Amino acid sequence: MKIYLAGPDVFLPDAAAVGRRKVELCARLGITGLYPLDNMVDLAARDASLQIFRGNEAMMEAADAIIANLTPFRGPGADPGTVYELGYMLGRGKLCLGYSNDPAPYAQRVRDFTAVHSRDGRLVDALGLTVEDFGLGDNLMMIHALDLHGCALVRPRQAPADPWHDLTAFEACARMAAGRAAAARPPASG
Amino acid sequence: MKIYLAGPDVFLPDAAAVGRRKVELCARLGITGLYPLDNMVDLAARDASLQIFRGNEAMMEAADAIIANLTPFRGPGADPGTVYELGYMLGRGKLCLGYSNDPAPYAQRVRDFTAVHSRDGRLVDALGLTVEDFGLGDNLMMIHALDLHGCALVRPRQAPADPWHDLTAFEACARMAAGRAAAARPPASG
Repeated sequence: MKIYLAGPDVFLPDAAAVGRRKVELCARLGITGLYPLDNMVDLAARDASLQIFRGNEAMMEAADAIIANLTPFRGPGADPGTVYELGYMLGRGKLCLGYSNDPAPYAQRVRDFTAVHSRDGRLVDALGLTVEDFGLGDNLMMIHALDLHGCALVRPRQAPADPWHDLTAFEACARMAAGRAAAARPPASG
Repeated sequence: MKIYLAGPDVFLPDAAAVGRRKVELCARLGITGLYPLDNMVDLAARDASLQIFRGNEAMMEAADAIIANLTPFRGPGADPGTVYELGYMLGRGKLCLGYSNDPAPYAQRVRDFTAVHSRDGRLVDALGLTVEDFGLGDNLMMIHALDLHGCALVRPRQAPADPWHDLTAFEACARMAAGRAAAARPPASG
């Protein structure tokens, strides 16, 4: 089973090393991790961003599943680029797994991000925009997509000391993917 | 042509009215807008969020295209719920259109959101995470998905006075969708 390893990990200072750790962890479980940074891209080229897009799209097509790192990124919600890829993979009918290294429900994170108050029984932010308050880890579209088309979002009970490098939740997803891959394999003959 | 009208518009205090304006605008152009809030959901039910998910997924399946409102939402990037839907619709092979009522490039918005500096030739934020700096309106995955599978992100030259209610960029997307629908229709006989 080939698994596309999506997440804002690619933006980390040690992005390549984090990717290697994820790919090695997958290999130990008998599955193949595909990490976006492993695409060859000429970052000095005028069309570098398009090369990255095409590389990622081809990698997603080659993959059977996605593990999306939905740890909040520059705000209370997940990284939009990663979320785009999760939606795309679901649309393509692939197995969808995801984790977040922030255990807080979404509404709590919005409270930490901006002023929030109740109005007419709804939770709203300073701009008057409704805050989703279903007790879920992020926007309901991603959360229920995972519930119904893969497995529930994996979250730690307590935030790890280093949420950008702790791979405990990632490993839980990888083990589930490996379990699915083993279950799908035909039994050995004889 | 049926068009799924995705966006954080559903979180506005006057979400239903905004949806009506969008649907009416589509109708005047001869296309059918499908607005998520038009799904019947019992918000008091224990599974309200799942009802919303299922309603949105069914609406997306029924639609031929999506117009995604990618105006920044609670941070420098687009609303993850909307971006999920854009990815899903692209994965399903549908026509993908989008707009943002913020004309600034993504890197500029990150500068306004948090401290940013250069390190080893890369733009990084206060956490050391790379800031995409390709001059695009948002994360390259969404931008190039639109470029290649619909049309380029529509942005105003100047931010409208009320970015949550100005429908100029939305109308530009709707007109493009109507044009595609007309081009796909067989010519009248006789």
